[in-house]
Amino acid sequence: MQTKDLEPVAGNGLLHRRAFIRGGAALAAAMTGYIQSASAQQLAEDPWSLKPGATVPDYEVRSQFEKKVVRTLSNPKGEPRTQHARTPHHLINATFPPNALHFVISHAGDPDPDPDKHRLVIHGLVKKPLVFTLDTLSRYPMVSRMAFVECGGNSAPLFSKEPIAADVQALHGLVSCAEWTGVMLSTLLEETGIDPKAKWVIAEGADAPHLSRSVPVSKALDDAMIALYQNGERIMPSNGYPMRLLLPGWEGNMNIKFVRRLELTTLPNMSYYEARTYAPVLPGGKAYQFYFIQEVKSFITHPSPGLALKGPGFYEISGIAYSGTGRISKVMVSADGGKSWAQAALQEPLHSKAFTRFRIPWRWDGGAAVLQSRAWDDAGYMQPTRAQLVAERGETTQIPAVTAFPSQHCNAITTWAVNASGEVKHVYA
Amino acid sequence: MQTKDLEPVAGNGLLHRRAFIRGGAALAAAMTGYIQSASAQQLAEDPWSLKPGATVPDYEVRSQFEKKVVRTLSNPKGEPRTQHARTPHHLINATFPPNALHFVISHAGDPDPDPDKHRLVIHGLVKKPLVFTLDTLSRYPMVSRMAFVECGGNSAPLFSKEPIAADVQALHGLVSCAEWTGVMLSTLLEETGIDPKAKWVIAEGADAPHLSRSVPVSKALDDAMIALYQNGERIMPSNGYPMRLLLPGWEGNMNIKFVRRLELTTLPNMSYYEARTYAPVLPGGKAYQFYFIQEVKSFITHPSPGLALKGPGFYEISGIAYSGTGRISKVMVSADGGKSWAQAALQEPLHSKAFTRFRIPWRWDGGAAVLQSRAWDDAGYMQPTRAQLVAERGETTQIPAVTAFPSQHCNAITTWAVNASGEVKHVYA
Repeated sequence: MQTKDLEPVAGNGLLHRRAFIRGGAALAAAMTGYIQSASAQQLAEDPWSLKPGATVPDYEVRSQFEKKVVRTLSNPKGEPRTQHARTPHHLINATFPPNALHFVISHAGDPDPDPDKHRLVIHGLVKKPLVFTLDTLSRYPMVSRMAFVECGGNSAPLFSKEPIAADVQALHGLVSCAEWTGVMLSTLLEETGIDPKAKWVIAEGADAPHLSRSVPVSKALDDAMIALYQNGERIMPSNGYPMRLLLPGWEGNMNIKFVRRLELTTLPNMSYYEARTYAPVLPGGKAYQFYFIQEVKSFITHPSPGLALKGPGFYEISGIAYSGTGRISKVMVSADGGKSWAQAALQEPLHSKAFTRFRIPWRWDGGAAVLQSRAWDDAGYMQPTRAQLVAERGETTQIPAVTAFPSQHCNAITTWAVNASGEVKHVYA
Repeated sequence: MQTKDLEPVAGNGLLHRRAFIRGGAALAAAMTGYIQSASAQQLAEDPWSLKPGATVPDYEVRSQFEKKVVRTLSNPKGEPRTQHARTPHHLINATFPPNALHFVISHAGDPDPDPDKHRLVIHGLVKKPLVFTLDTLSRYPMVSRMAFVECGGNSAPLFSKEPIAADVQALHGLVSCAEWTGVMLSTLLEETGIDPKAKWVIAEGADAPHLSRSVPVSKALDDAMIALYQNGERIMPSNGYPMRLLLPGWEGNMNIKFVRRLELTTLPNMSYYEARTYAPVLPGGKAYQFYFIQEVKSFITHPSPGLALKGPGFYEISGIAYSGTGRISKVMVSADGGKSWAQAALQEPLHSKAFTRFRIPWRWDGGAAVLQSRAWDDAGYMQPTRAQLVAERGETTQIPAVTAFPSQHCNAITTWAVNASGEVKHVYA
């Protein structure tokens, strides 16, 4: 045991991120009473261990013991209003959640479109308007890429004047990440040709709200995709089956699901969402509009509220970082509420505009601790503190609704307070 | 349209892999009658498009229209023999299949272990034998990595003297790839300490067969992992819930599921699988034993048998490449049975010992074509032709059973013949 490796590198017990990669940091001593020596316990032959199991199914489902790992629903009866399904980031552990747990916001429920009848039309200021079927699109060159999708309103509870008692799922559950496979929109626009007067692409969904958003032609020609697959399977129903617009790094609402129409125009269409929901007036009087990018952000998932610490000793602090402007370049973690910081290890390879998991070892002394993470990206952006963000945008005196002010694009630092019992709470630092 | 981009770079219509990244390769002309101009067809308002959909569930399931995308089962009634569930690589499209479709070989069905009762013991030639619960393991530093797992018997039908009429799922369905998250075995062996006499780790599963395999200590200390999560969720039941040994790049059978015991020893234990199944005698008389690595391999998934071409014109040829010895460095594709080759584009970032998707544009003239892919890795290995492999290992006169000779570690080039009707068949070239 190389004691040096277990010397804290920042306040309140943060250890060097490379401690375990270098080896030599035996932890059993730090978990006395928690890890048992083998002589103390024999391997039991549980009944399941001695008999044949069930037939392997053609489409696997998870263990009955994992049924609690679910999205939380804001509208579980499907009443005629928006439904939110939030990803349980504290109950999963990777760089992308499985499709079954990808967050969803649905304004009119899950439709059930027949993929063979679905059409995508590209028209307006193009040289040759075209209609694409799913079958046609499948003949085009495809690409796969990891990309996060985040609701513009994710993390909005951090604008609240008082910290709400909530876990990471309630605070940050409106973001997920997947490997999307489909046809680059630039490839399809190559087919239709573009009238030089075209500056915007109006994207419209086929589900009942026919939600539409205006996308600059520059983004459409950059990294926009007509996504057909999500983590290898066809897109999930509530994520836009059989096709959605993917705008990596941009406001979730713009990633039009069930996309059926792309109309090229000279002007944006000032639809409901861009004219109202995503256009709040800022304290200085300017409107916050066409602010598409989901900026650099991070939050700690382990530990977090609901995942209590079980006695002093070693833990790993781990979380998710992402940025709509590029790759994560650095995540710093504090265990003393921002007084001192240590650099976390980033899971490689790093993907642009996708989740990056960060991890750092921590030895909890059993006293109060205040955990924070802060991310930087390779475009030079830094995640703001809550105080910085509130100074610019204001705060609300209650949990903000979608239309409250301010409610959008909150990427402030999140703070978890650990008390002497090991309980974790959301606080402001 | 830059005609140059559509000039073939190899025989039978293979186009340059960068044609569509450079832009300028409009294809509509190459798909006349297949893509419709928008004026020819209006967007229909299907009934689903005008009414609210279903309630968003807390755990999403796929569209009813995708129910055909399933694993094929060798033993669908779960009779008392081995069950194989093969991944439908031709019906998915990404670099890793979803958990529900990850291949499985199960020798006694799907057990249903209670994760809280499961124990992992490390004992034998260690300084301090230890017992780990799932809860304890969750306190250790974790890592996530993409890794393929492949049955040693995958692709064995290519040893058959005559090409069997089969699709990519039947030929190559016993390999998948996932992001595995867990604790490095080296971290746990740091805890127990290792007696210098220890050369092997005997890993044993807790399900009824108590399958065990011998793993060199060097691999255990290199990149072996006790995996707890598969693509973010807890490991699927038939992939070893709640924990499995992951040995990136090595024979699937060694990646012990439901792992409950790791015993450090001086000698391998010569268990059933290593003494018999994975130890065939080669034509020269030598035994093929402790040949752990799944070597560099690739196969074309699109087009492939069952995915008929619908008329001449543009298609993308796409497939999967992977190697147990490192990263894929190059994939070459032929449309004329190996007479000429063109380099495919590789999806980045490249992961070591994980799937890499390759893609290359192709213009089919409507005549006979013979498609092949061949992969290289960054350790310098090259996928062999079938003739090369058979010269070394022999061939069988019938579809090989697991115990037939030769039956293991087949990484030969696969050949698909396309006829003038666009049908795709497995052939030998």
